[in-house]
Amino acid sequence: MSEIRRDPVSNRWIVIAPELFEEMILSAKDRFEPNTNLCPFCPGNEAATPQEILAFGPADRLPNSPGWSVRVFPSRTPALRPEGAEDRQGKGIFDFMNALGAHEVVVNGPDHHGHLATLSREQITLILKACRDRINDLFGDRRLHYVMIFIDHGKSAGQKLGHSCSQIVAVPKVPPSIEEELRGAKQYYDLKERCVFCDILMQEVKMGIGFVCENDHFVAFCPFASRFPYEVWLLPKEHQMAFGTQSDAQLQALSGILQAVAIKLDAVLGEPDYHMVLHTAPNLAAKPGYWQTVPEDYHWHIEFIPRVFESATYEWGAGYYVNSVAPERAALALRTPH
Amino acid sequence: MSEIRRDPVSNRWIVIAPELFEEMILSAKDRFEPNTNLCPFCPGNEAATPQEILAFGPADRLPNSPGWSVRVFPSRTPALRPEGAEDRQGKGIFDFMNALGAHEVVVNGPDHHGHLATLSREQITLILKACRDRINDLFGDRRLHYVMIFIDHGKSAGQKLGHSCSQIVAVPKVPPSIEEELRGAKQYYDLKERCVFCDILMQEVKMGIGFVCENDHFVAFCPFASRFPYEVWLLPKEHQMAFGTQSDAQLQALSGILQAVAIKLDAVLGEPDYHMVLHTAPNLAAKPGYWQTVPEDYHWHIEFIPRVFESATYEWGAGYYVNSVAPERAALALRTPH
Repeated sequence: MSEIRRDPVSNRWIVIAPELFEEMILSAKDRFEPNTNLCPFCPGNEAATPQEILAFGPADRLPNSPGWSVRVFPSRTPALRPEGAEDRQGKGIFDFMNALGAHEVVVNGPDHHGHLATLSREQITLILKACRDRINDLFGDRRLHYVMIFIDHGKSAGQKLGHSCSQIVAVPKVPPSIEEELRGAKQYYDLKERCVFCDILMQEVKMGIGFVCENDHFVAFCPFASRFPYEVWLLPKEHQMAFGTQSDAQLQALSGILQAVAIKLDAVLGEPDYHMVLHTAPNLAAKPGYWQTVPEDYHWHIEFIPRVFESATYEWGAGYYVNSVAPERAALALRTPH
Repeated sequence: MSEIRRDPVSNRWIVIAPELFEEMILSAKDRFEPNTNLCPFCPGNEAATPQEILAFGPADRLPNSPGWSVRVFPSRTPALRPEGAEDRQGKGIFDFMNALGAHEVVVNGPDHHGHLATLSREQITLILKACRDRINDLFGDRRLHYVMIFIDHGKSAGQKLGHSCSQIVAVPKVPPSIEEELRGAKQYYDLKERCVFCDILMQEVKMGIGFVCENDHFVAFCPFASRFPYEVWLLPKEHQMAFGTQSDAQLQALSGILQAVAIKLDAVLGEPDYHMVLHTAPNLAAKPGYWQTVPEDYHWHIEFIPRVFESATYEWGAGYYVNSVAPERAALALRTPH
């Protein structure tokens, strides 16, 4: 029933997924219950979810049974499905195709109440491993040009159940926000013959104005042109275009800085809701040259977007942002030991 | 204190306005009070606002006194100011300039409780006239490349006081959402030698699938690739690129269809919060050729974005939308007489 339609003005693709409607209505009501008996993400309730795709747990554990530490399965009501062909068609001046893709859920741990700031380092590393393994598996399908991975933390950020999860959405088109970054990074590289993200990193660390914290592999900072109050970016220090190539040791380092930033945001902003979004290179096996850029220019990173004020919503749509907290002020607050 | 900073990756400009911080904190608390004695937008409280720029009322009325039907003044805490020069500078790899622009408020009427669905037709026409007159005045300043006009209706849409207002934001850069439309409309025109919006209008009216209602000058419809449930666009039937050229008679017709759509949304969705946004051509007097497009290809319009589900927020940022209500279904519901 779902299809992807092309807006004839902006050329962007929109997923029209009427079967999500019932699910959304349910979400809109209070499904944020602390009652773990009813939570489909809690251990013991595996039957309430689709069959698992991946899980980490003891070797003798049966699939779809308790005992896991991280569990991945398709969304109960996916907007996108991996079956079938694109089947592109026109209807007068309008273009549409099948809603090809995948929508998967990574349950971030067995504990209903755990989240980035409170989970163990080992647990966060396992979540990152699951995401890395899924992205590499999904990119085996050349029809899927991009994989979005994000955590919506808290009700105002769109979290639907009280139990923390990461979402993996594989799509046949690179999202406009990523295309814009790829285009900008390519322009910069053409001009300077340097990676723009590497230059940002150098300057943020050297000048120290937006600097928040670092470890051997990663730096966290509030970017110079932050769109939102207390926006934080995490970048690998080494130039790397794709998240999928990370070693276990790198993911271990990443889990440390992710948790440090989550704890700092909680301390400074009083446990805010936030979005945490991975920005990585598109599927390089799919249609070379499609992105009109050399993806080697790109540098993967993670963006934290705390939801501090309600009024930011219109700005998302216009792409025109007014930020009432200078990033140097936000960085200073986050840098201070708590 | 405010400045506009360029994101070195995406090249988009972000307004950093620390003086807004206090205002935002106040807004975040409950300023939605129905107590009209305290409302700075209510008649009698004119002293609580900056000096008015424009007001419609009896000829013998003194400025900044009661008796007006529409009143326009600068925002109390504008993120952008018309004084001074751009003064572009670099700081290492980062670019910034003064926050040149304007931020004005149009009080939509003396009645604290009135809004689009309940105001008189004459009142709505006056609001539109004030917006038209302000856009034409602001475009006299060639440093201002674009004027955004929008109404945030309801708390979840970012309305800060209970009293309805329109906001006018003049900026030195065309917002990315408009640039994208200008680019797409130009591509289409180059290929087909027809306006893409005129083609959409023809097809929506002819096929009738997204059609909602019309009058002599305007058509309302749910667009084929709607990003949001119950998104409605209003287009002038005649090809017109700019809102600023509208005659009083056209604004009279526009007020009718605006109100019809607001009433329909209220009836079908139970008085939802919404954004109403004007999309019009950039300042043609400023830097010809700057937009890499022929603005004659463009067709001004108004977009209604009801806020039906909380979870849409992340999608705004990624530019990747999942809409759970097919626009043909939304249009059918809105078309039905109530």
